[in-house]
Amino acid sequence: MLGKSMENVRKTAPLIHCITNYVTVNDTANILLACGASPLMSDEPRDMDITSVCNALYLNIGTLNERSIEAMFIAGEKAKESGKVVVLDPVGAGASALRTSTAAEIMQKLRPDVIKGNASEIKTLALGKGKTKGVDADIDDEVTEENLNSAVKFIKDFSKSTGAVVAMTGKIDLVADNEKCYVIRNGHHLMSKITGTGCMLGAVSTAYAAANRADMTESVAAAVCLMGLAGEMGVGRMSEADGNVSLRNYIIDAVYNINEKTLERGAKYEIR
Amino acid sequence: MLGKSMENVRKTAPLIHCITNYVTVNDTANILLACGASPLMSDEPRDMDITSVCNALYLNIGTLNERSIEAMFIAGEKAKESGKVVVLDPVGAGASALRTSTAAEIMQKLRPDVIKGNASEIKTLALGKGKTKGVDADIDDEVTEENLNSAVKFIKDFSKSTGAVVAMTGKIDLVADNEKCYVIRNGHHLMSKITGTGCMLGAVSTAYAAANRADMTESVAAAVCLMGLAGEMGVGRMSEADGNVSLRNYIIDAVYNINEKTLERGAKYEIR
Amino acid sequence: MLGKSMENVRKTAPLIHCITNYVTVNDTANILLACGASPLMSDEPRDMDITSVCNALYLNIGTLNERSIEAMFIAGEKAKESGKVVVLDPVGAGASALRTSTAAEIMQKLRPDVIKGNASEIKTLALGKGKTKGVDADIDDEVTEENLNSAVKFIKDFSKSTGAVVAMTGKIDLVADNEKCYVIRNGHHLMSKITGTGCMLGAVSTAYAAANRADMTESVAAAVCLMGLAGEMGVGRMSEADGNVSLRNYIIDAVYNINEKTLERGAKYEIR
Repeated sequence: MLGKSMENVRKTAPLIHCITNYVTVNDTANILLACGASPLMSDEPRDMDITSVCNALYLNIGTLNERSIEAMFIAGEKAKESGKVVVLDPVGAGASALRTSTAAEIMQKLRPDVIKGNASEIKTLALGKGKTKGVDADIDDEVTEENLNSAVKFIKDFSKSTGAVVAMTGKIDLVADNEKCYVIRNGHHLMSKITGTGCMLGAVSTAYAAANRADMTESVAAAVCLMGLAGEMGVGRMSEADGNVSLRNYIIDAVYNINEKTLERGAKYEIR
Repeated sequence: MLGKSMENVRKTAPLIHCITNYVTVNDTANILLACGASPLMSDEPRDMDITSVCNALYLNIGTLNERSIEAMFIAGEKAKESGKVVVLDPVGAGASALRTSTAAEIMQKLRPDVIKGNASEIKTLALGKGKTKGVDADIDDEVTEENLNSAVKFIKDFSKSTGAVVAMTGKIDLVADNEKCYVIRNGHHLMSKITGTGCMLGAVSTAYAAANRADMTESVAAAVCLMGLAGEMGVGRMSEADGNVSLRNYIIDAVYNINEKTLERGAKYEIR
Repeated sequence: MLGKSMENVRKTAPLIHCITNYVTVNDTANILLACGASPLMSDEPRDMDITSVCNALYLNIGTLNERSIEAMFIAGEKAKESGKVVVLDPVGAGASALRTSTAAEIMQKLRPDVIKGNASEIKTLALGKGKTKGVDADIDDEVTEENLNSAVKFIKDFSKSTGAVVAMTGKIDLVADNEKCYVIRNGHHLMSKITGTGCMLGAVSTAYAAANRADMTESVAAAVCLMGLAGEMGVGRMSEADGNVSLRNYIIDAVYNINEKTLERGAKYEIR
């Protein structure tokens, strides 16, 4: 019933407060609009009363700084107080001490409803270590068909200990709570040639979770399938002269155009 | 004679100092180039002597912070001292206390030549209240054919009290000074599915006002018609697979390509 | 053997730490991916241990601020200590005191391996003056066929005095060390209608230099030819309705698609 998650986003048009990096922020805003939500960006601590007009909060530490970190905690506390969805995207956790400690502190103090990261980032948060090479996952951390069973157990356990829905992205994407894990095989390897697919997924996941409080795990799985499917459709639309920037455009365009039927038909997942 | 406004921009190529948000800044820079002007972005208070090489100043509070607010006042005072056009885009005024007070302070201390906002933002500035839902206008604030007369009076009065040309955007756009009001019916509703159309219009309006000091009201009306027409042409260019990001690209491309004749022919306005 | 430089970038996929402006940062990230490298953006002083996971450092002062300036020096010292390539892009040097002094201080303290700027910026650094009009070069500073000999001598001398490979861009691009100067005639005048071609070139040059330590001068010349050729191909791909944003997309796409043969065949340069 992934289509139902999509329908709820388009029907309720949640306004998402994003404290996110300045690299991919425009794509993040446009993909929120494409999926039927609305973006609002603000990272000044004194401006954080603005989170009260929003429906959910997306925290992405991709280009964190002292000001934005302070803003994250102020906005996060306000969001939690009023029962709004908070999503953490721990970009680069494991690659620097500040990123690792900030992500850990957000987890501890704000207890986000959803945590979305690549394998390196999630392992860093779960195990206190990882092999994050910048903002990309290290190859050894990747989920494969061979290590899938242990990865599913790992992510369910991490969800249990944190109370969060956990999305771990890679060649195979996993979205889990402590009971069920969506194993998702959408997407295309060329998506790694674009900056921001992870950030875009984080923002879309926030919109989906906010509009589907009754089953956030399924809604985040729907967001992951949507982005993967958009990637497949985007690659399919590429002409010979097209490169990664055209692919980026096609992906956001695809999110704009995919409807419930297309999503249901194109989603490739199993539940374990 | 909107075409004359356009000709003056392309002939003089004004350099626009933008202190603007990081969400739509790239589109803002590219649309300035598309319309024949040049962009310069800088928001560090110690760098504000750079405003002296520019022809006008565009202040957009979309992702304001303490540093950029300080920079706005320094640059604004320098610009006013040397008689340069200053334009205020009060993004999100009404949605947070900091945005509302910063916009009010800019109005009071810098007395901008042009103020451009959606209905919620303009009403917040004029009445000290509004129903800003994030950065989008609230539906109740919208100008319609039914309330058009009173809206025209409202905006002329606001222009009179501030001394600024006022542009209030929505389904119907109004551009007014204290005597005349351009009622503009260009544009397309899909433009609201893109982030940054408002910011782009704010920047283009700055370029148009800077190059047309003799009739800034008409020049801002020309900028509003240009953006609306570009939106119509952009939507007309969309294929079935295109979405909001392609539309964004088409709009900037259209601004690049629209010439004086196309603008004169496509502009839909009356003066009241 | 420009193709060899390209091959080395694609083979080693260097991770480039960019401290750069927020205007063109997304394009900078995507063109690094397009050319076979990887981007990492971070400008918070406390996060600068992240430079240790990177292969090179790109410093672009386009929207410098106190925080990012501090970060540049911390990251720069770490990079130099571990023998990594440091590249300076002195955007707007000559247009403000802060930009001029920051660029000069970076040159003195960090002794960058490569300096890339337009004629105004390079002259400002070399002579302590220039006529920088914002971020574009002043027309009088341009290299032409008439002043080419003296320009070649000037840039070789500047390279000798700084120890850096110097790339000075314009209608004719020059890339020189103290012995040889590549005189490059690729590119297209419409590239000046896009924001960020200079920043993109700076980032790509960093990737090329990092992957080709044995001959950084040639590798930066290869990067300059690549960008110019991509500009030519981008313009060639434009349809009637296309404007500057489509051109931007086509240029990054072209960098993604150009292979060693295309580069070798399309590069227009002589060595003086």
